[in-house]
Amino acid sequence: MSGRGEAPGSVGALGEFGLVAAVVARFATTADVLLGPGDDAAVVAAPDGRVVATTDLLVEGRHFRRDWSSAHDVGRKAAAQNLADIIAMGARPTVLLVGLGVPPDLPVDWATGLADGLAAECALVGATVVGGDVVRSDSVVVSVTALGDLEGRAPVTRSGAQVGDVVALAGRLGWAAAGLAVLGRGFRSPRMLADAHRVPQPPYAAGLAAALAGATSMLDVSDGLVQDAGHLADASGVVIVLDTSALSIDSPVAEAASAFNLDPLGWVLGGGDDHALLATFPPSAALPPGFTVIGEVRAGDPAVLVDGAPYAGSAGHDHFAS
Amino acid sequence: MSGRGEAPGSVGALGEFGLVAAVVARFATTADVLLGPGDDAAVVAAPDGRVVATTDLLVEGRHFRRDWSSAHDVGRKAAAQNLADIIAMGARPTVLLVGLGVPPDLPVDWATGLADGLAAECALVGATVVGGDVVRSDSVVVSVTALGDLEGRAPVTRSGAQVGDVVALAGRLGWAAAGLAVLGRGFRSPRMLADAHRVPQPPYAAGLAAALAGATSMLDVSDGLVQDAGHLADASGVVIVLDTSALSIDSPVAEAASAFNLDPLGWVLGGGDDHALLATFPPSAALPPGFTVIGEVRAGDPAVLVDGAPYAGSAGHDHFAS
Repeated sequence: MSGRGEAPGSVGALGEFGLVAAVVARFATTADVLLGPGDDAAVVAAPDGRVVATTDLLVEGRHFRRDWSSAHDVGRKAAAQNLADIIAMGARPTVLLVGLGVPPDLPVDWATGLADGLAAECALVGATVVGGDVVRSDSVVVSVTALGDLEGRAPVTRSGAQVGDVVALAGRLGWAAAGLAVLGRGFRSPRMLADAHRVPQPPYAAGLAAALAGATSMLDVSDGLVQDAGHLADASGVVIVLDTSALSIDSPVAEAASAFNLDPLGWVLGGGDDHALLATFPPSAALPPGFTVIGEVRAGDPAVLVDGAPYAGSAGHDHFAS
Repeated sequence: MSGRGEAPGSVGALGEFGLVAAVVARFATTADVLLGPGDDAAVVAAPDGRVVATTDLLVEGRHFRRDWSSAHDVGRKAAAQNLADIIAMGARPTVLLVGLGVPPDLPVDWATGLADGLAAECALVGATVVGGDVVRSDSVVVSVTALGDLEGRAPVTRSGAQVGDVVALAGRLGWAAAGLAVLGRGFRSPRMLADAHRVPQPPYAAGLAAALAGATSMLDVSDGLVQDAGHLADASGVVIVLDTSALSIDSPVAEAASAFNLDPLGWVLGGGDDHALLATFPPSAALPPGFTVIGEVRAGDPAVLVDGAPYAGSAGHDHFAS
């Protein structure tokens, strides 16, 4: 409802139903959408007879700051981290459902910018937004649920790594952590690092390629390489051996670390939020494009070894850490 | 991670992964769960080849208060309002995905109580929780996504009401609004009204029954009868005529209204959160158990008429209203 004295151009002045209409107009329809927004629930095609589903919650001040990231950035990031989870199962993302909590003084442009960002990221993989909820909250909260289609394939889980497999990586590491360090120190550049914090670039095409190439296990690196490799080791009951000489330390990451007098390997091994794909393949498999071998799977009590030893640095991110 | 000086028994002291483990242990597995919590995404059966999906966001202070509702209550309510949306499509709820934002000083018992409440409500319809996300936030935020199975039936949407249909209702009206009024005035009783605010009681069995009986349209009354009837009128392009003499004003609702010197019909027509089911049926249909005729569908520009006239009171809830 409008006209209750909220600031012009704010979501409070536009009201719940006006805001929903403005946001929903941003989303394309696709062949997966059998019944789109506007009813009690959406109806989505699941031709495989199974549906892959994941959800993430993003909270202002913890996962993004409105003075660091545009609404479009936040929309793309919220979509990307969920799409990456679907991709990491070897599935094709189909739709997102989005819950949005907004303060009433939030500009309508911010909400529609978020919707545009969600739509833009979805478009990279042929997905769309099919439903959601808008409520009032003190700060911005974005919850995203992504669904996906396995297209007849088995899901690529965390538990299938076999002794003797190679460990391979697709995508970037350390970029988002370096970007967060840059922004946290009050800088806006290097722009490409700040942007890596704002909007991750998951290697979407590599997920399906890995599934088709026979990946035995896969996950997306959201918390940090060593920590996420540990999840894979635990689920598969194996030792993951990582060789840091095989890890790419990209120039912007190396230069920022040098400027801050830090070891860039800390960001590469412990930094999250880039959503690279970590997978294991039989040694005989032809690695799909984009993947580089960074280690191997050995027998033993579940553990991660970095250059032959337990890793002494920060392995990754705990979402409750201060 | 533990041991960073957070209060003993708090989720901050337990850490993200400990909390996830404690919560996940609460959830049963069902035949619909092909791959449960612990991977990048869950895999859920969708034997129909379509999946019904809906999401809601609940924010502390807006949708619940921790001094009014137990954690178990909040879990049940969060599940119920999403399950009701699936039911209102004529589908069978299969799984929930839950995003949980918690302050680090939140007692672990509160988080596990919430999980128990989610599990208990799911058990009423044979559903379970299959995945989620836990993050840090300043106040408690609960996002729930529910999936459902149409079992080969057409979805019962909001747009199928036909001129000449009867309008019928299953479930309670005005209870949650009366309960909110009671709690808002500082009272804890009548307990059954306060409980109606804390935990809705959607008429779950009536949804499937309505679908099987040939309901032409259906929705769950979450915002208020007149407002939600308006959604049905708009989507179907019809006039919904409501007869208040056919509406039940239950004794506890009537008595609370009398005590506060209010007209109970205001709560019955405008109060949300009871998640009754409003449906239309062909006049020849045998109404399923639980449904009562409360009006009829007429031709005309979309509108709701209450006893022959537009409704002058509050039609329902706007989530941005102060």
